[in-house]
Amino acid sequence: MTEQATEQKVEEAQSAALELATYDEQRRSSALHAIADAIDARHEEILAANEIDVEEAEQLLEAGEYSQALVDRLELSPTKLESITEMVRSVAAQDDPLGTTQQARELDDDLELYKQTVPIGVVGTIFESRPDALVQIAALSLKSGNAVILKGGSEASESNRTLFEIIREATDDIVDGWAQLIEAREDVDTILEMDDEIDLVMPRGSSEFVSYIQDNTSIPVLGHTEGICHVFVDSKADLEMATEIAYDAKVQYPAVCNAVETLLVHTDVAEAFLPDIVARWEEAGVEVRGDERTRSIVDVEAANEADWATEYGDLIVSVRVVDSLEDALAHVTTYGSKHTESIVTADDDRARTFMRRLDSASVFHNASTRFSDGYRFGLGAEVGISTGKIHARGPVGLEGLTTYQYYLEGDGHLVGTYAGADAKAFTHEDFDGTW
Amino acid sequence: MTEQATEQKVEEAQSAALELATYDEQRRSSALHAIADAIDARHEEILAANEIDVEEAEQLLEAGEYSQALVDRLELSPTKLESITEMVRSVAAQDDPLGTTQQARELDDDLELYKQTVPIGVVGTIFESRPDALVQIAALSLKSGNAVILKGGSEASESNRTLFEIIREATDDIVDGWAQLIEAREDVDTILEMDDEIDLVMPRGSSEFVSYIQDNTSIPVLGHTEGICHVFVDSKADLEMATEIAYDAKVQYPAVCNAVETLLVHTDVAEAFLPDIVARWEEAGVEVRGDERTRSIVDVEAANEADWATEYGDLIVSVRVVDSLEDALAHVTTYGSKHTESIVTADDDRARTFMRRLDSASVFHNASTRFSDGYRFGLGAEVGISTGKIHARGPVGLEGLTTYQYYLEGDGHLVGTYAGADAKAFTHEDFDGTW
Repeated sequence: MTEQATEQKVEEAQSAALELATYDEQRRSSALHAIADAIDARHEEILAANEIDVEEAEQLLEAGEYSQALVDRLELSPTKLESITEMVRSVAAQDDPLGTTQQARELDDDLELYKQTVPIGVVGTIFESRPDALVQIAALSLKSGNAVILKGGSEASESNRTLFEIIREATDDIVDGWAQLIEAREDVDTILEMDDEIDLVMPRGSSEFVSYIQDNTSIPVLGHTEGICHVFVDSKADLEMATEIAYDAKVQYPAVCNAVETLLVHTDVAEAFLPDIVARWEEAGVEVRGDERTRSIVDVEAANEADWATEYGDLIVSVRVVDSLEDALAHVTTYGSKHTESIVTADDDRARTFMRRLDSASVFHNASTRFSDGYRFGLGAEVGISTGKIHARGPVGLEGLTTYQYYLEGDGHLVGTYAGADAKAFTHEDFDGTW
Repeated sequence: MTEQATEQKVEEAQSAALELATYDEQRRSSALHAIADAIDARHEEILAANEIDVEEAEQLLEAGEYSQALVDRLELSPTKLESITEMVRSVAAQDDPLGTTQQARELDDDLELYKQTVPIGVVGTIFESRPDALVQIAALSLKSGNAVILKGGSEASESNRTLFEIIREATDDIVDGWAQLIEAREDVDTILEMDDEIDLVMPRGSSEFVSYIQDNTSIPVLGHTEGICHVFVDSKADLEMATEIAYDAKVQYPAVCNAVETLLVHTDVAEAFLPDIVARWEEAGVEVRGDERTRSIVDVEAANEADWATEYGDLIVSVRVVDSLEDALAHVTTYGSKHTESIVTADDDRARTFMRRLDSASVFHNASTRFSDGYRFGLGAEVGISTGKIHARGPVGLEGLTTYQYYLEGDGHLVGTYAGADAKAFTHEDFDGTW
């Protein structure tokens, strides 16, 4: 696509966003139901388009350019399509994130200030091979009143194009242009330049990819680079509990960002604790890499400096014995990615120190790092997990796709009245009320 | 300063931030009182340093390189110093922005999630010639538990260095390195590269300067580029009220970002309205520039396309007659800077349409744009005004210097329990409680 055509799509989205922001919940949610119904009705068409993508991917798999995992993620089935439409209907059923009065304050008689949640405007998303990601992101954007630029992976281009067409046709009674599909890699660079038109970029993919986006745009970016999560087994830990948590955090689903990558063990309990957990891990096929002190207790591979800074995303874990809570904190601060850490301890004071001293989005006490997730947190649909600290942090729900506006209702009020020698005083009193 | 020395300062701040985050309110506020007391006790020293800056600035004023306004902003006096310490004590008296539980939610029995306000971490600030800005920013950062990198204007270097030393000595019983002064222009580029260490940059200065910062860092930026604010006098306006608001919004303090720059007038009331306001403005020395339709009613200079996109910051205003509410919205959307707009109308429906259709941080009904300000909004001390839409919008108080962490308190909870065929259900029930 030419640069001009891409720019025009973004500008259309920007103008659609202004109208979308004025729709009530009923209108947004019924558009979501129309999308779900259309996907239900058009399985054949979607599966035919998907088959083209999958065949091409299988050729590249044979040529050794793609992985089986990628082909699996790409492939749709009637069951998968049903779970997609179930997701769209559950987004429709979420509480409306818009039009909430976060604060109502009287500034003076008949001068009332309202802080009201509104959509962000235009969000740009760049995602990987799963065609279900396109539908999910479009649904979350529509529910939160945002126009959306969708850029999917080229390996899913036929599936994406068909799903996008279905979404567009199903929503033809709301403002045109609220969703835009872009397809070419070069178009990403075009949209990254459009900081006056796009309000937020949400990349999903490898940490290298997210870093590339952050380094190449002045648009705010919401996403997570790495998930190097830690479990610290304190000297005051219930060791059985610690074993279960360390096992769950690594084995229950090792490929995800909230799985543990490094286990830190207080020296006082290392000998009592390590043999059991290592045996259980090894039974589950986990490769354990330990520092010298770990290896003096259990027979495992050696961990090196690079291990502490690695997100394995796999059945591999590094283990380090530390002398103190302070040393555990220092390790996490040096090597962590501010995603999720957990302390196992029966001592509440030590737990609080751990939690307050760490600058991570999620810090847990006696619970698996795997709880760090929008669904488990009860946020409903999840936009993603953020390791940034600005705007939205940790698992991000629909709320992360909103911002606020200040509305002031006056009756001819002038600032001059509140300035100078005879200045009137403000009342500044919060009240229960909505705009 | 060498690049290494600057980097070391930022790293010191980063490590100080972790400790600062654990201080209770009493400790932060008494450090603020110590700063105020020290400034009160050391007037002579501060004024002597300031005199050096002022003398140098006066030479540059004579050489035509500096403006009188800059010299005025630079100059301190005993009265100014008193208002500075009054400000520091008022920041100390603000409600603590930290340690608030924004949400407490039971995920399951004995599994409780808390969303807790915490400091952002390290904030970098780059500000103009006023030495009082250094003290204000340091005070706001300390109150909100953030470490701060301070870069002031070179014209205030002696004043800044003295004030910074006083602040450092007065806070020697809290963590060393929480505030850092950098002085050279080149050091700005060094800190803009440090996106792993600095969490937020707040530039204060011209819009060109803020844009430069945005374009040259991947650190999130909080600030406002331009304040092109509008007043729209609707067909249903009370014209006397409209005159007062348009006058106050321009004349009460024309140099600030929330002053009106363009007045839009509905054609139905243009003839009845324009002569009065133009007469009042001209009496106050305001230069009025109008479009053709305005000039057919009142005798004023011609406005051109560039006027609509200009923040005058001065006693100049542009005026345009529009045919409809829709045309007013289109004008603001095209030329505005998403700062503050106001509609004057007796028709609440038309007001709501105006407010909901505009994507500006603050949108007012029957009130002067000049109310767009942290103090008037009752936010207490103001960090700045943001025209961005992410994190904090409009006038930003201490709350804008905070983020949140998720704390999860469990009792050995595993994600495996909530997955698979026998998955336990989450309870997901909010409760009143604090961490």
